Amino acid sequence: MSPAPRVCHDPAEFRTALAERLAAAGAGPASLGLVPTMGALHEGHGHLVRRARAENDVVAVSIFVNPLQFGPGEDYERYPRTLEADLELLARHGADLVLAPGLEQMYPGGEPLVRVTAGRLGTVLDGASRPGHFDGALTVVNRLLNLTAPRGGGAFRAYFGEKDAQQLLLVRRMVADFALPVEVRPVPIVRDADGLALSSRNRYLDDDGRRAALVLPRTLAALAAGEVDLPAARARIDAEDGVRLDYLVVVDPATLEPAEPGPGTLALVAARVGTTRLIDNRAL
Amino acid sequence: MSPAPRVCHDPAEFRTALAERLAAAGAGPASLGLVPTMGALHEGHGHLVRRARAENDVVAVSIFVNPLQFGPGEDYERYPRTLEADLELLARHGADLVLAPGLEQMYPGGEPLVRVTAGRLGTVLDGASRPGHFDGALTVVNRLLNLTAPRGGGAFRAYFGEKDAQQLLLVRRMVADFALPVEVRPVPIVRDADGLALSSRNRYLDDDGRRAALVLPRTLAALAAGEVDLPAARARIDAEDGVRLDYLVVVDPATLEPAEPGPGTLALVAARVGTTRLIDNRAL
Repeated sequence: MSPAPRVCHDPAEFRTALAERLAAAGAGPASLGLVPTMGALHEGHGHLVRRARAENDVVAVSIFVNPLQFGPGEDYERYPRTLEADLELLARHGADLVLAPGLEQMYPGGEPLVRVTAGRLGTVLDGASRPGHFDGALTVVNRLLNLTAPRGGGAFRAYFGEKDAQQLLLVRRMVADFALPVEVRPVPIVRDADGLALSSRNRYLDDDGRRAALVLPRTLAALAAGEVDLPAARARIDAEDGVRLDYLVVVDPATLEPAEPGPGTLALVAARVGTTRLIDNRAL
Repeated sequence: MSPAPRVCHDPAEFRTALAERLAAAGAGPASLGLVPTMGALHEGHGHLVRRARAENDVVAVSIFVNPLQFGPGEDYERYPRTLEADLELLARHGADLVLAPGLEQMYPGGEPLVRVTAGRLGTVLDGASRPGHFDGALTVVNRLLNLTAPRGGGAFRAYFGEKDAQQLLLVRRMVADFALPVEVRPVPIVRDADGLALSSRNRYLDDDGRRAALVLPRTLAALAAGEVDLPAARARIDAEDGVRLDYLVVVDPATLEPAEPGPGTLALVAARVGTTRLIDNRAL
């Protein structure tokens, strides 16, 4: 167990603490890994932190439930806030610093007026089901990256899970389009023993919901094995009690355009299990 | 006359050259001033460069006619491109480095998919007359700032003219909302002897247009002197042959909300003189 990470609530204090850690990290410009999260951390986040730990001198984690990326009627209010447990997990995986700002600390001038817009890639799939979601997510990620980017010349890497495939693609695209001084590092999906992709929202599921949700990874696996085609895969999910399919598609991962299932393509699924919206994906 | 600035067309080459100049500038982290322009430089730009020269170790100027900020039917195609004369002016005012990318060098992945959106402040005044203009301008300014920001810890300042008051306000707001690592430095309007604010578009004016255009600074001066109220000021511009008023307003400069004329407010005008759109403003 590493020592508990230092927690900063104020971004300016966080920047100062970061600069101190980077300066203390040794000779030459030190490298920094950032793991942006909304808290409610699970072992999927743990993998992100461990990867950051292995690749950088200093590891920072942000915990901020960003209202901009929740639509009206979504779960912003009830999104789990579990800071104490989060800090235990982060200590276990060796994070150095945590930025956990309140709303006013994150947006001291009120909600941002100038924002990021995801464009066409933000209006399909999850963007079609959650209008404005990716604009809000990119707006906060851009701000977090700028707040965190070291000024001392060392490498800067940011870690994102592959479960949020569309978000990962959009963050990569934003980094390229904005010329942001960061390297985006994707980290594979982590699954429970039963195959369900880890998600902060899994804790909303009761036992029946949990069992029903397994149709998602199982159907993706069947697609990958060529046991079913896309219409049969959709029918399988539709047939599951308590599961409402939002989309199941196979796309070119660089463009999210529909593609013939085959090597290099990505199957993406979103469904509501009871009131809980889950997403998953798998390379074919 | 200083030596001619070094001209880079490729942003990566520009970054390398910048890092070299900053490293060579002396002990400790050197400061950098950036003047973003669309070329067609005049003495107004010269003032920006001189201010940057006085305040920084290294001065860079970007010259890029950004298609994203021109609407359909605007003057993107005919916007003056005068690189040779621009470089002479920049040598005269002591710029060190010039980034003058072509379209493909600026946007190597094609036009950006992820963009900046100016929000409510980008839809009023010039934003109402030029839909999308400020989104396009902020998108390129954000990219230029990120491309240019030094990684060595020195100060970074960017210079903008007060003539483009709404753009200046939006750039300030973007820098705050995005937490960009730059200090925005505003520079007062430069006027010709007859009072006309310097603008790259003044060269479109013929002699009659030039004379007619003087109604804009004269009316602003009359407003500032309290010689006319707003309706009378508008009537004066409307009465000028060949001038079509777009807007003449008095606003709170922090919000662009209409305000009673008085100390601390800003009068903003936009008008078409023949086919040439001009803007001007004056603190009251």
